[in-house]
Amino acid sequence: MQYNFSNRFKNLKPSPAGDILATMGDPTLIKFSGGNPASDSFPIDKITEFSNEILTNKPLSVLEYGLTEGYHPLLEEAKKFFNRDGNVVRDDDMMICTSGSQQIADCLAKIICNEGDTVLTEDPSFLGVLDSIRSNGANLVGVKMEDDGIDLADLEEKLKIKPTPKFIYVIPNFQNPTGITMSLEKRKAVYELCKKYGVIILEDNPYGQLRFSGEPVPPIKSFDEEGIVVYAASFSKIIAPGIRVACAVGKPEIIGALKKVKFLNDVHSTTWSQVICERILATCDMDAQIEKLKEIYGAKNKIMQDEMAKNFHPSVKYTKPEGGMFVWVTLPDNVDMMEFVGEALENKVALVPGTAFLADTSMPCQSFRMNFSTPSVEDIIKGIKILGELTYKYCK
Amino acid sequence: MQYNFSNRFKNLKPSPAGDILATMGDPTLIKFSGGNPASDSFPIDKITEFSNEILTNKPLSVLEYGLTEGYHPLLEEAKKFFNRDGNVVRDDDMMICTSGSQQIADCLAKIICNEGDTVLTEDPSFLGVLDSIRSNGANLVGVKMEDDGIDLADLEEKLKIKPTPKFIYVIPNFQNPTGITMSLEKRKAVYELCKKYGVIILEDNPYGQLRFSGEPVPPIKSFDEEGIVVYAASFSKIIAPGIRVACAVGKPEIIGALKKVKFLNDVHSTTWSQVICERILATCDMDAQIEKLKEIYGAKNKIMQDEMAKNFHPSVKYTKPEGGMFVWVTLPDNVDMMEFVGEALENKVALVPGTAFLADTSMPCQSFRMNFSTPSVEDIIKGIKILGELTYKYCK
Repeated sequence: MQYNFSNRFKNLKPSPAGDILATMGDPTLIKFSGGNPASDSFPIDKITEFSNEILTNKPLSVLEYGLTEGYHPLLEEAKKFFNRDGNVVRDDDMMICTSGSQQIADCLAKIICNEGDTVLTEDPSFLGVLDSIRSNGANLVGVKMEDDGIDLADLEEKLKIKPTPKFIYVIPNFQNPTGITMSLEKRKAVYELCKKYGVIILEDNPYGQLRFSGEPVPPIKSFDEEGIVVYAASFSKIIAPGIRVACAVGKPEIIGALKKVKFLNDVHSTTWSQVICERILATCDMDAQIEKLKEIYGAKNKIMQDEMAKNFHPSVKYTKPEGGMFVWVTLPDNVDMMEFVGEALENKVALVPGTAFLADTSMPCQSFRMNFSTPSVEDIIKGIKILGELTYKYCK
Repeated sequence: MQYNFSNRFKNLKPSPAGDILATMGDPTLIKFSGGNPASDSFPIDKITEFSNEILTNKPLSVLEYGLTEGYHPLLEEAKKFFNRDGNVVRDDDMMICTSGSQQIADCLAKIICNEGDTVLTEDPSFLGVLDSIRSNGANLVGVKMEDDGIDLADLEEKLKIKPTPKFIYVIPNFQNPTGITMSLEKRKAVYELCKKYGVIILEDNPYGQLRFSGEPVPPIKSFDEEGIVVYAASFSKIIAPGIRVACAVGKPEIIGALKKVKFLNDVHSTTWSQVICERILATCDMDAQIEKLKEIYGAKNKIMQDEMAKNFHPSVKYTKPEGGMFVWVTLPDNVDMMEFVGEALENKVALVPGTAFLADTSMPCQSFRMNFSTPSVEDIIKGIKILGELTYKYCK
């Protein structure tokens, strides 16, 4: 049978990163191309203990249908946890638990965007969410990035597009793919500009707890008095990604709409995962868990930074993240980035070409993304050495 | 802020069942309005044992990111399990694990339908999936039901609609809400008609294993040589609904497209649930588990049928399901169904008005849905007695 797919589905182009991601199973590769949290940070003993406890004492509470908005004790614990970072969850806000935070972006685009509507995004940004937005028929328009976050002049320019963009997608902490953190001043300015133009902000904060240097900056959501921010936070990096637990926070009208389409999508998220998450937040020392994350991520980042400083040609630029999992490397203008990434792969080092993260993937790009949380220390040292030699070959 | 929702979201009307469903938390009600599997059928001991085993021996296999298509050993076991019912999963088919089977309908509508496209459905049908389809911007057109399934003449009439409908949604076994099973002849005829008009069939089989009388009828998927059937089966009723595990089966082109949008929706389903499911399918006596389901569901159905026969006014008609969880009760034309359902609720018996299950919820309806799997035997007897008295009050 000849299948006739929808326009919004046909709107999805094969990712320029497809060839690289297809190689992820190859065990001989040094994979700077991943995006996985460091598995040595997972609280395995606690998860096992709590799982046993709940299945022994209250099995039906995890085996019967649950509520679409999520397991209420988890929502209460998540509220306390998010509010460690500022006034993120207010008393008149609504929260729902989702199956990972990508579901928040997908459902938001579904309830807000008609086909052809404009959505703004930091450019580059996380390709998974960019494709979620595209899959709902919206058109992405990128806003330039600077070292301290989004370019405000370019943002105002794009906010003036008619019809007005429906929302903007931002990752203020240790952005994927750049590792850049948006400054407090810019967060406030982004909030004011979006308020002025009546544009919703989807603030995605998957990496916020992974800060290993510098000072925390409060989320945009913490100064939202108008209900323009939908805040998305995930437990994938704090606890473990396989459990698929995230939360969306915002005003009841918009989170209620998200809940409605989440119900029509998967009814509710797996209850077992939510109970595990709740038990960890309620009873474990989260300061100690975050300290452990900082040590693991900070150490690997430092090694990657030190090795790049030693090995890379001076004309190669790269970001210096204060947290998260990614570094964004930019080659000089005269180097063919795709050729460089291709030769790195031939030398058994996998990188993700930056093009994959662009709002318009047909635009030129001199950058690639590297992940430092997944590879071993040995692989980081070995891989950067190989890349360093390549930079000297290419940057003449 | 004034939120400006998308047309497809605004396409969702408040459910006519909303008032009833809002009362579900009331413990004083006899709830014939639910749709929950009988929790005494859940294999709790096995789930606890397998959970402990996997978290102790291979914790990372459930805590790291998993594959979008699902945990491969589960897909293999599910293939064997589905093929107990016929040639359902063929060697050139593709399977994916989804977070409940509602996700299959939601993703299928997303990849196949443009806004305004027509989707056919048995009329009445499961309101959750009808709303999933509506939430993707499609328009539903209902096809009449008869005692042995869909009305073939009406189906061919509706298949001729221009532009041609994108797919048809059917639940051939113990349909929700009617409890009707589609005969083998009709399954073959539906397949031939849809093939003739080039229309995909979404065959939803959540209740297939819950047969307590009569002879099994093979799924439409088992005679699909053209790849027009997408088969959806869930483990919610065989194992437990809170784990959220279902599978979609079909030709790689269409299941691959489903996988792509599932990735953009929730990346992958919770791995823990998939491992539990795999362990149960691979190591437990599924015949014994299904025998247990049959006994529980069959006994409750028999009591409800016996009590209706004793207590209902003879002018009230109701279906006699051979499996599943639902009975469809139709009042005589001169009775106001909504008033009847309202008075039942005042008398502490919750029913779901049939209107909620219609493709066009503004159409008149004389029927309501009753569930027999959730209420206790005592509640079934007590509730049917109350309804019986009401039928004599209303049917004069």
